Amino acid sequence: MASHPPKKEVPHNNHVDYVIRYSFVDTHTDQACQQLELLLRRLSEVGLQTEVREGDESSVLVFVRASRKERLKRAVYQSRIRDWLYGVRNTEPEPESSAEPHSESERLRIIHHTITVPREAGGAGITLKHGEWKNVTAIFPLHDVETNKQRMRDWSKKTFLSNEDLDQIRNTFGESIGFYFAFLQSYFKFLLFPAIFGFSCWLLLGSFSTIYAMGNALWGVIFIEYWKHQEEDLSCRWESKGVSALREKRREFIPEREVRDENTGEIRGVYPATKRLQRQLLQVPFALLAAIALGVIIATCFAIEIFISEVYNGPFKTYLVFIPTILLSALLPTMTTILVSVATRLNDYENYETQVAYDVALTQKIFVINFITSYLPIFLTAFVYVPFAHSIVPYLDIFHLTVQPFVSEEDATAARTEFSIDPSRLKKQVIYFTVTAQAVGFAQETIVPFLKQRFLQKYKEYKKRSGKAESDNNTDEKKVPEVEFEDAPEEAQFLKRVRYEAELEDYDVTDDLREMCIQFGYLALFSPIWPLVPVSFLVNNWVELRSDFFKICMECKRPSPQRADTIGPWLDSLGFLSWVGSITSAALVYMFSNGHEGPNGEPTTIKGWALLLTIFFCEHIYLLVRYAVRATIAKMEPPNVRQERTERYLLRKRFLESTLQSRSSDDEIEEETTPHVDQSPEVSEITRATLEDDARAGSRHGTDSADRFWMRQKGWKESAYVGSSIIHALAVKPELKKQQ
Amino acid sequence: MASHPPKKEVPHNNHVDYVIRYSFVDTHTDQACQQLELLLRRLSEVGLQTEVREGDESSVLVFVRASRKERLKRAVYQSRIRDWLYGVRNTEPEPESSAEPHSESERLRIIHHTITVPREAGGAGITLKHGEWKNVTAIFPLHDVETNKQRMRDWSKKTFLSNEDLDQIRNTFGESIGFYFAFLQSYFKFLLFPAIFGFSCWLLLGSFSTIYAMGNALWGVIFIEYWKHQEEDLSCRWESKGVSALREKRREFIPEREVRDENTGEIRGVYPATKRLQRQLLQVPFALLAAIALGVIIATCFAIEIFISEVYNGPFKTYLVFIPTILLSALLPTMTTILVSVATRLNDYENYETQVAYDVALTQKIFVINFITSYLPIFLTAFVYVPFAHSIVPYLDIFHLTVQPFVSEEDATAARTEFSIDPSRLKKQVIYFTVTAQAVGFAQETIVPFLKQRFLQKYKEYKKRSGKAESDNNTDEKKVPEVEFEDAPEEAQFLKRVRYEAELEDYDVTDDLREMCIQFGYLALFSPIWPLVPVSFLVNNWVELRSDFFKICMECKRPSPQRADTIGPWLDSLGFLSWVGSITSAALVYMFSNGHEGPNGEPTTIKGWALLLTIFFCEHIYLLVRYAVRATIAKMEPPNVRQERTERYLLRKRFLESTLQSRSSDDEIEEETTPHVDQSPEVSEITRATLEDDARAGSRHGTDSADRFWMRQKGWKESAYVGSSIIHALAVKPELKKQQ
Repeated sequence: MASHPPKKEVPHNNHVDYVIRYSFVDTHTDQACQQLELLLRRLSEVGLQTEVREGDESSVLVFVRASRKERLKRAVYQSRIRDWLYGVRNTEPEPESSAEPHSESERLRIIHHTITVPREAGGAGITLKHGEWKNVTAIFPLHDVETNKQRMRDWSKKTFLSNEDLDQIRNTFGESIGFYFAFLQSYFKFLLFPAIFGFSCWLLLGSFSTIYAMGNALWGVIFIEYWKHQEEDLSCRWESKGVSALREKRREFIPEREVRDENTGEIRGVYPATKRLQRQLLQVPFALLAAIALGVIIATCFAIEIFISEVYNGPFKTYLVFIPTILLSALLPTMTTILVSVATRLNDYENYETQVAYDVALTQKIFVINFITSYLPIFLTAFVYVPFAHSIVPYLDIFHLTVQPFVSEEDATAARTEFSIDPSRLKKQVIYFTVTAQAVGFAQETIVPFLKQRFLQKYKEYKKRSGKAESDNNTDEKKVPEVEFEDAPEEAQFLKRVRYEAELEDYDVTDDLREMCIQFGYLALFSPIWPLVPVSFLVNNWVELRSDFFKICMECKRPSPQRADTIGPWLDSLGFLSWVGSITSAALVYMFSNGHEGPNGEPTTIKGWALLLTIFFCEHIYLLVRYAVRATIAKMEPPNVRQERTERYLLRKRFLESTLQSRSSDDEIEEETTPHVDQSPEVSEITRATLEDDARAGSRHGTDSADRFWMRQKGWKESAYVGSSIIHALAVKPELKKQQ
Repeated sequence: MASHPPKKEVPHNNHVDYVIRYSFVDTHTDQACQQLELLLRRLSEVGLQTEVREGDESSVLVFVRASRKERLKRAVYQSRIRDWLYGVRNTEPEPESSAEPHSESERLRIIHHTITVPREAGGAGITLKHGEWKNVTAIFPLHDVETNKQRMRDWSKKTFLSNEDLDQIRNTFGESIGFYFAFLQSYFKFLLFPAIFGFSCWLLLGSFSTIYAMGNALWGVIFIEYWKHQEEDLSCRWESKGVSALREKRREFIPEREVRDENTGEIRGVYPATKRLQRQLLQVPFALLAAIALGVIIATCFAIEIFISEVYNGPFKTYLVFIPTILLSALLPTMTTILVSVATRLNDYENYETQVAYDVALTQKIFVINFITSYLPIFLTAFVYVPFAHSIVPYLDIFHLTVQPFVSEEDATAARTEFSIDPSRLKKQVIYFTVTAQAVGFAQETIVPFLKQRFLQKYKEYKKRSGKAESDNNTDEKKVPEVEFEDAPEEAQFLKRVRYEAELEDYDVTDDLREMCIQFGYLALFSPIWPLVPVSFLVNNWVELRSDFFKICMECKRPSPQRADTIGPWLDSLGFLSWVGSITSAALVYMFSNGHEGPNGEPTTIKGWALLLTIFFCEHIYLLVRYAVRATIAKMEPPNVRQERTERYLLRKRFLESTLQSRSSDDEIEEETTPHVDQSPEVSEITRATLEDDARAGSRHGTDSADRFWMRQKGWKESAYVGSSIIHALAVKPELKKQQ
């Protein structure tokens, strides 16, 4: 189904499948050696070849290769059998002898599975940074440097990635990352429409256009529904549909009690759902806490900013205007970090049984935090500052008092009367979040870490060299003996790269998905304020796709391929944002579209009931349209889904035909042998009399009434004869009637 | 899984499985005979035994029995294979030789399937009232009179039906009707809470209580989510989960073109989804038409009623008040009938491929009509009459003019000034719809048809007798010859009953489901007006459950068992009503709860923005609560679902264990034969030198660098040795440092 790429040889990676970093900091030497021995034995037991090399000062690198073809084939076969049993694949897997991984990612996934799965289930049971194996600090495959570079070069010349490009990502990094890129690609393609539409609206209609808001909301609905459709198609293409049924247990899960399952006879750890539910209720105070903590910071900084930039008129204004920005950039990330750590702890406390459930729950919590930090500032401007500034600004005197020492009485009074709402503030803020912040984010995410890494490496090398020089100079004072093992010259280059990769960060696809989701939120919620938002995002996302690939290849360890059949809980977040967008867009358009501003810049004609009525109708029309779009798209079957259905259908047909055939061959025999078919000649002689005779004969023999009922007519031909007699007899009646 | 009832013998039905009524009105006698012969031959070909008896004046009854055990077993086996392939059942079916239907309904369903399925698929291909078989006017099983009576007696003494009772219904009438009764039973049980709660609120808080409205909305959400949960449980218990995947083609489906499927090689009729979508767009004007047509009738009658009862003060008032009621009861059913027939035609035009899709679409259309006829009157009173009566009533002069001849000038004027809103009208109306109309509906649905049938039967008998008497008297004039065949005396009683049953109506479970759904709507939408609504429904539904069973048993042909795993589209309707209820309840409570009525009865303090804000918050809180309740209930696994999951798990485990076992036996062989395990004695002698030697030896033999990389350490023990050397070497460093 999925295109199978030509099997790539990776000789530059020396056929290494996985590298395991074994770190022995804080462990006694002998114990470390024993542990390492155990690790190697376990790996060997599951048929993996190992080589050991020096890592950095306190770690050893274990190179792992699935060298035995038979063992790998069996692992592949088992994985496919499991898929088949759990309904991930429909066709029965080919026999073990011909089981080959279809792609690099499948090979790596299966080897990773073999390394990590518990021994009872036939794996080596190596658990990353956990329990017995807490010294195993990384298990990662090696980057395919040449191919990655080739791809980056290719893509920089392309506007759209092709399906084959996406297949290649999936074949290299697995379905989970493949889905992210596919999503980004779809999103980028879909952005073309609002970009052009937004640009036209901006030219012709300006901001707050009803037409743009409606077009944008409709686009959002169609995009989300289309993506669901696309997701299903891809999961069929990549043969990962329903893969979430194969849920791996979380090792951190603490069961309340062990229960012996009556049916399976297994002992299972159980944690009651009701108890978890109680713990989950803590999410409510957490969400409130997050909202208040972040809200207070944002609102305070916001108030200070307004006060300083629009009310305050004293000295140092040029410098003071930076205070809120500095405060915000100092406090907000700190508070976010605190809240994320609280969320993580809360999530640990909720004690989920599977990794998927854990991730979903954490994603939801982090989404709440992100929602507040990303959108609250604009919400404040649009729905608090603009309509209520005149009632609120006088209270900003609290700040005023604190700066009084620097301001003369006259200045302050002048400031208060002078105050008027800055109507362009909203637009400026949106531009900041959708252009500046995106660019800053890109720099923080991609360029800074890259430079930092380069610098750190240089620094390390420098230090090493200078240390060496120093030790060369003072050979007596600091006698640091050289490590006994040195890299063989032909391996030096390779080992250097592996050591470099071992130092890199882990890649987490959720962060990138979250970023896109938040970006979509700006579009859905606030783009009527400035219809060029999609244009900015279009440009940004072209770069984003490539820079994310660059990030994975150059700044992160190669991730272990993971399967997925969806982008997960983010899909719900997108839906939620689009829904909220229908409310905010309606409100924004109603409040600002008429452009009749009062003497001090606030919109004068806002009527509560009209605003609410607008929101009410827009929201429900949105829901109605969403329902219609969903129903419509659900009726179109994506090509790969259809193909999958056909395969399943063929399977069924073969099965059913085989049973039908056996049946019809039976029939022929029956037809020949059954006695009641051979009475055709005397059919005409059946009369009521003979039938009654039969019946009487039956009653004489003591058969019960039911048997007698069924013995009146022997075989269908007799029944047919009796039937036609009845019909003739009954048909005579009306004819006779007519004659009369 | 489902309890298998002791196999009941039904000798009083003479072992008859199905009765086929073959009617030959308007068909030439010879043709009719031929057709009948064909029918009997077809039935015989699929292994069914037949007997023919006289029906009424123009029909023949064909009695069908699956007498050949082997054939029935094969059909059962095939049905189970099909279920298994489509994922309806998880366990592979038992072999054909031991395949026995578990229940009467399974037996009947399989026989019905055999009779109706096309010949290509191995059935007899008899299509009810369609095409070639348009003379086949009924295919029905016979009622099990004794058991039905027994059950009715039992249930009249019970408050709640037990699970076993529901199983019995399912075993007799099939899953589809079983689901209806299970739903009714759940609904009845759940009504206990709002009945008690409503009664308390009515006593303590009166109408329009906020607490009652909130409790009621929460109850609605929980009930719907609980029922979904329950439905899943039942579908596992009754082994019908996922049965909707087995969709039967509609015979009326007209394909646009025949397409040869490339993969399956089959020729399939295809109708493009986009074209159907265009046709479905006609639903929008249809819904508008229905809303306007019904709306105009209802609003007009409503206006007339208000005018006559509250404004008009002239003569004949006592009689005139009945005019709107008469108009309404004359016009509304007529219009409904017209609209339903339009909806049916529209649905036919939409040309659905499967029966399920057709039914769902029709259900949706009929729901629109029902929604308007049922709820619009109360909507008008609550949201038009009460708040706006004073602006509208003057326009009722139009009516006034028409009645002017009867009214003196003074009366009319007096009437106008006298007018005040009747605040109890709303409550009266709700009481009418939830008590009176329910009782009237019950009478119309159950008692009237029963009496009518009895009466018709008596009348027929009377006519027959009098006709006979007449023909006896005037033997010369009207020479209607007696039909040749007369019932055998021992069959007479049985045949009489069969003929009676053949005359009965078909039962359609959707009608009853619709009734319940509409009833739920009153509760969700309007019960804050009169909190005793659930009490009335509780009483009503106790009767309803029994009377519906009575109706099925006594007033309808026994329905052919049909499988289902849900109550279908009504579930969505319930959800929709509950949602709308959150809006109407909020509005009603806001508008009427303060009780401050103006001088003329209208509530004075309604403020547009406050009303809308209330609605906005209540609706979103409702949606939030629904989300939470849904998430909570989704986490609780119903017992039968768990059991099913366990079964599936066991199946998988067996499969996986078998592959694992073969693996571990292989391993042992490998361990013995692989050469690189036997080097333990000389491990200690490995030094860097020997390793380097090996490497050099490798390079001499011209192996590539990757091979050399993997040849440095032979086996895991060598790796372990090298690893521990590295650890020791590296561990020395910091220790040395410390010493300095």
